[in-house]
Amino acid sequence: MKSKVINFKDKFSQFTEHWSPRVIAEMNDYQFKLVKVAGEFVWHDHPETDEVFIVIEGVLNIEFRDGPVTLEPGEMFVIPKGVEHKPVANAECKIMIVEPKGVVNTGDANSDLTAQNDLWI
Amino acid sequence: MKSKVINFKDKFSQFTEHWSPRVIAEMNDYQFKLVKVAGEFVWHDHPETDEVFIVIEGVLNIEFRDGPVTLEPGEMFVIPKGVEHKPVANAECKIMIVEPKGVVNTGDANSDLTAQNDLWI
Repeated sequence: MKSKVINFKDKFSQFTEHWSPRVIAEMNDYQFKLVKVAGEFVWHDHPETDEVFIVIEGVLNIEFRDGPVTLEPGEMFVIPKGVEHKPVANAECKIMIVEPKGVVNTGDANSDLTAQNDLWI
Repeated sequence: MKSKVINFKDKFSQFTEHWSPRVIAEMNDYQFKLVKVAGEFVWHDHPETDEVFIVIEGVLNIEFRDGPVTLEPGEMFVIPKGVEHKPVANAECKIMIVEPKGVVNTGDANSDLTAQNDLWI
């Protein structure tokens, strides 16, 4: 079982791309994904599921149509399904996302930022 | 939305009991629970679901029938469904558990450590 311990710092050292989620674990049909983010993402929503953001390092802003929230390390946020949001990070920020397997990062939005899905590290 | 930011440190300050999970968030039919643990838990398994442990503060040992693993802050572990395990913490340790709503902390084991379910903070 020892080889199955997942260390966030170790996993983050294995990639550099921004806005490209890497799957680190699966629990039933849900996935835990690490993402390095910087700059502005696109407005989108996930009509079929809630989505959890947990900040590991740095500061993440999430804009909503009724105003932004700011998340620091040790903070999390549940984005309800169907609610439009736009992540923004003024400097590189390391986050973990928890959501069902198969969720596309840009949701219903067509974007150059749409990432390959199910990319494991 | 600002009031919905969940701060782990703030939430941990709201209870003292050991082995008594407190729900801090729900994502679809899954829950995020904070737990303060110390000493030995009971051997048990969850026949119906995987279970995720994430260590926030302190050191958590999880014993399995084929040997133990040690988790430090910033590390997580997926306990596969049906696999017997026994959490042990030599000193108080703060963890987050992610699992479907309704999972009982002691699983299939009858124990004095069986905690009230769905206790929100």
